[in-house]
Amino acid sequence: MKNDFCTVALVGKYQDPGVADAVLEVADFLRRRGLTVWIETDTASSLPVDRRGEVRDFDEIGAGCNLAVVLGGDGTMLYVAQKLAEDGVPLVGINRGRLGFLTDIGRDEAAERLGEILDGHYKAEARCMLQAELVREGEVIARRLAFNDVVLSKGDKGRLIEFELSVDGEFVYAQRSDGLIVATPTGSTAYSLSTNGPILHPTVRCIALVPIAPHALAARPVTVPDSCEIELVLHQPQDAGVFFDGHARAQLQPGDGVRIRRSPRDVQLLHPVNYSYFAMLREKLHWSTAPRIS
Amino acid sequence: MKNDFCTVALVGKYQDPGVADAVLEVADFLRRRGLTVWIETDTASSLPVDRRGEVRDFDEIGAGCNLAVVLGGDGTMLYVAQKLAEDGVPLVGINRGRLGFLTDIGRDEAAERLGEILDGHYKAEARCMLQAELVREGEVIARRLAFNDVVLSKGDKGRLIEFELSVDGEFVYAQRSDGLIVATPTGSTAYSLSTNGPILHPTVRCIALVPIAPHALAARPVTVPDSCEIELVLHQPQDAGVFFDGHARAQLQPGDGVRIRRSPRDVQLLHPVNYSYFAMLREKLHWSTAPRIS
Amino acid sequence: MKNDFCTVALVGKYQDPGVADAVLEVADFLRRRGLTVWIETDTASSLPVDRRGEVRDFDEIGAGCNLAVVLGGDGTMLYVAQKLAEDGVPLVGINRGRLGFLTDIGRDEAAERLGEILDGHYKAEARCMLQAELVREGEVIARRLAFNDVVLSKGDKGRLIEFELSVDGEFVYAQRSDGLIVATPTGSTAYSLSTNGPILHPTVRCIALVPIAPHALAARPVTVPDSCEIELVLHQPQDAGVFFDGHARAQLQPGDGVRIRRSPRDVQLLHPVNYSYFAMLREKLHWSTAPRIS
Amino acid sequence: MKNDFCTVALVGKYQDPGVADAVLEVADFLRRRGLTVWIETDTASSLPVDRRGEVRDFDEIGAGCNLAVVLGGDGTMLYVAQKLAEDGVPLVGINRGRLGFLTDIGRDEAAERLGEILDGHYKAEARCMLQAELVREGEVIARRLAFNDVVLSKGDKGRLIEFELSVDGEFVYAQRSDGLIVATPTGSTAYSLSTNGPILHPTVRCIALVPIAPHALAARPVTVPDSCEIELVLHQPQDAGVFFDGHARAQLQPGDGVRIRRSPRDVQLLHPVNYSYFAMLREKLHWSTAPRIS
Repeated sequence: MKNDFCTVALVGKYQDPGVADAVLEVADFLRRRGLTVWIETDTASSLPVDRRGEVRDFDEIGAGCNLAVVLGGDGTMLYVAQKLAEDGVPLVGINRGRLGFLTDIGRDEAAERLGEILDGHYKAEARCMLQAELVREGEVIARRLAFNDVVLSKGDKGRLIEFELSVDGEFVYAQRSDGLIVATPTGSTAYSLSTNGPILHPTVRCIALVPIAPHALAARPVTVPDSCEIELVLHQPQDAGVFFDGHARAQLQPGDGVRIRRSPRDVQLLHPVNYSYFAMLREKLHWSTAPRIS
Repeated sequence: MKNDFCTVALVGKYQDPGVADAVLEVADFLRRRGLTVWIETDTASSLPVDRRGEVRDFDEIGAGCNLAVVLGGDGTMLYVAQKLAEDGVPLVGINRGRLGFLTDIGRDEAAERLGEILDGHYKAEARCMLQAELVREGEVIARRLAFNDVVLSKGDKGRLIEFELSVDGEFVYAQRSDGLIVATPTGSTAYSLSTNGPILHPTVRCIALVPIAPHALAARPVTVPDSCEIELVLHQPQDAGVFFDGHARAQLQPGDGVRIRRSPRDVQLLHPVNYSYFAMLREKLHWSTAPRIS
Repeated sequence: MKNDFCTVALVGKYQDPGVADAVLEVADFLRRRGLTVWIETDTASSLPVDRRGEVRDFDEIGAGCNLAVVLGGDGTMLYVAQKLAEDGVPLVGINRGRLGFLTDIGRDEAAERLGEILDGHYKAEARCMLQAELVREGEVIARRLAFNDVVLSKGDKGRLIEFELSVDGEFVYAQRSDGLIVATPTGSTAYSLSTNGPILHPTVRCIALVPIAPHALAARPVTVPDSCEIELVLHQPQDAGVFFDGHARAQLQPGDGVRIRRSPRDVQLLHPVNYSYFAMLREKLHWSTAPRIS
Repeated sequence: MKNDFCTVALVGKYQDPGVADAVLEVADFLRRRGLTVWIETDTASSLPVDRRGEVRDFDEIGAGCNLAVVLGGDGTMLYVAQKLAEDGVPLVGINRGRLGFLTDIGRDEAAERLGEILDGHYKAEARCMLQAELVREGEVIARRLAFNDVVLSKGDKGRLIEFELSVDGEFVYAQRSDGLIVATPTGSTAYSLSTNGPILHPTVRCIALVPIAPHALAARPVTVPDSCEIELVLHQPQDAGVFFDGHARAQLQPGDGVRIRRSPRDVQLLHPVNYSYFAMLREKLHWSTAPRIS
């Protein structure tokens, strides 16, 4: 594989000054390799003024970079993925602490792994995102992307919510619960997993529909193809909101609908060549590697 | 859609004489429509000698029929699907009692629905099957098909078993448990569902790997693409067997492996035009159709 | 058993005018038996002015009644139980719709069952309640009772909360989750059940600690004796609240603690003599009564 | 507390010669303290002939010892508890590897902890056992004890079993499943935990009824008081057995019943004074001790 990364963006964990050293270290490494390095605007604000170099915002990065190196945790990857999704800039994730599901390079091996990736030795992976529309009285009043999940959730009055779920216009069920998680395979190891959702390999082309604390005991997670359009409708006045990757809550009104489908643009992840999805799961979920654990 | 069903096989629930009336009724209906009707050999043995008509075995049915009508429950469909899988004969399922996941036509509506199907008004659906190989000392000593699931299971000594799981040659985990269910989307609403496996829409191209009573609390169902080869290996001497669709147990020996992949041949199901997968789930799983159930 | 019910209170579902007919019907029935009937103040406001009879508030009812008949659903029973818990007035629950876990007499059989109970033919049952204290900077700033559960819950910003759990001063775990349910056996069939909590027979003297969507896969419900004091402490600033029987949310501040123990006063429930806890579970949870359900 | 341990039995893991060193080490330690040491017969057979000292069988140990020290894992404790349950000999568990739920003293700290216990510094704990009767045609044909659980289980034909459950003669449900676990609080962290059973603190006086892979999605674990008599009845001919602490399978015949109640004799466990049930759970189940685990 030919190395064609000439302009590389660096993005650090949002509003975390502690990431400055790691950013500077990686920036130096990249510059020594003769690459043009852009520092994302918010990230740059954490750096000493004289060491910021070329500062660019996400729009400029999306338009002009061949690669973005993200320093932070999975939350930072979710954030950057949304920002750069339109432009398809490939992402590499470097974690300063414990490895994440998405940030699979440790800081102490960052230079070595980045070097390999820049040399063209990597595994590229396309991960799907969701796009959601909030529909009120027939009008789309908001559009959002989500890399992990779109979550319909009760509000802080603590009352169950009631909604109807349809898939491709076909009624699935009416449910009373704390909410519903609509998750990508990437999101299947996040919030969904804590509510009995299935782990979905990133190459399975599907979306998981996972109820949160459902009132009916027979409710179960359902996995549908990622070509489906999913719709949630709330008929009654109730205290409910929608979250996108755990953020950006939108309060819902009676009659509001949420329409969700796969985004036409995927997130491009680059992994080191020795990356293994299952090894990452074992590490993150403390699965056993040895037959006898006693 | 053009009606090209000229030779139709009838298969009744295995060794259930109670199915005779239904078989004769459907046979008469089909003959009145001018079709050639073949009665499967075992099924025929339940009928009065003078009413058996043309009796054929599964090989002949596979070679010469355009359609097989199955009278029984889901277990009968599993059985017939395996027998006719090689030849791709489309199946229609008629249930005499409560509708099944696969037998979605009730006996009282059988004539009407069959008529519609014969007129070319139906939904055709390809469902995947699994093929499994039992490997001992490098040799494949048995091959089997499964429509629902291949289940690795402890024996009746009641001891946990220990095995290793690989997907496409990549190690996934070592597990101590009562066993592991390898399920198709069709099987996701069968045994797998009773052990917290996810419901998988039949059009999601995947296979579920669902642990049974795993010793480690972090074990979870994992869903992988149906293009994968799955391998289970037992290293220790232990009391374990493999089931195919809940039958045909093969006892395992230490070192034995079980290799599972999607069969190249799908099962062809024909449903009435008003068939809805989600409506069937609601009916079978007692899901709510109304927002308020109190 | 001697009938010593001479003054009976009637309490209807809160702010539900639809309950008026049932209240009047039961009031008439009781008066015909020569009993003194008190109508609870809010309930009376739903009745025609000339038919309210003797109107009393909960304090008066607590001090002067031998029995309270509650017309409504389980939510109404929870509410009334808290109001009358101090005084130990026995409660009978009459449901106008589908029977509840606590309201186990149907409206159409109300007169017959009430008659039996007034004749002294009933099963008396003491159900425990919880009392909770909200502690801020060493001061108890609020005290509340709960019949079902005390629930620590994330707020509507949707972020996981972090807290520490202790039992009788002994540290149990630190947890990141959507919250924790502290449930009585009565509450074990309510919210707790929808998050995998165990069903606890009302005579088991225990309290269940059930995590809601815990981040760690090894988190499990734990059941402790009802003689324990349970304490939850939040160390970080975070968006969290506490609910008592699903109502009356108290917003928490960093450092706040919630202390929960069994209330010294039980709720006294009177059931018809043919009442069966397990029959009620079968009815409410749609459990099978027949060996073969296919 | 006065030290009145004068005759101490040593029991090692069954048929494990590897336990010999640990047994000899502990025996020497006890003898140096002037105590009489008895070696259990099977355990002695693993020792060099000249070092066996006084060899006694379980009956003699039950009649004449004040304390039994068990060297092995939880399985060994289950076994010894059954053997000595009648006589109420207190047990101390020493694990050579990773600590167990019941064997809570590590080998490297064995002398120190044993010393403290012999000095009278310990926590004594009574744990309940179950006694089960197998009833055929009205006759009790077998009686067994269980410390963890009595498990009704399908056989190796792999078919669901059907049975009815009663508690104190009251019908609870008919169930189709792989089986049912009847667990003590001690057993609640064993097999039961791997099938979604609740963790029950040892001082909660209860028994858990936990279905294994139930066919009906609404089936849930139920916890009843330990004063109850539990009865399981199989009406149909089917392939089913009963296990006691995972061993000693008894094959069932149609119509057979299994009656289970709390044994009148408890198991007496002695723990070091710094023993904490919750600390043991955290260690065994990998629960978090720190608020932030990320």
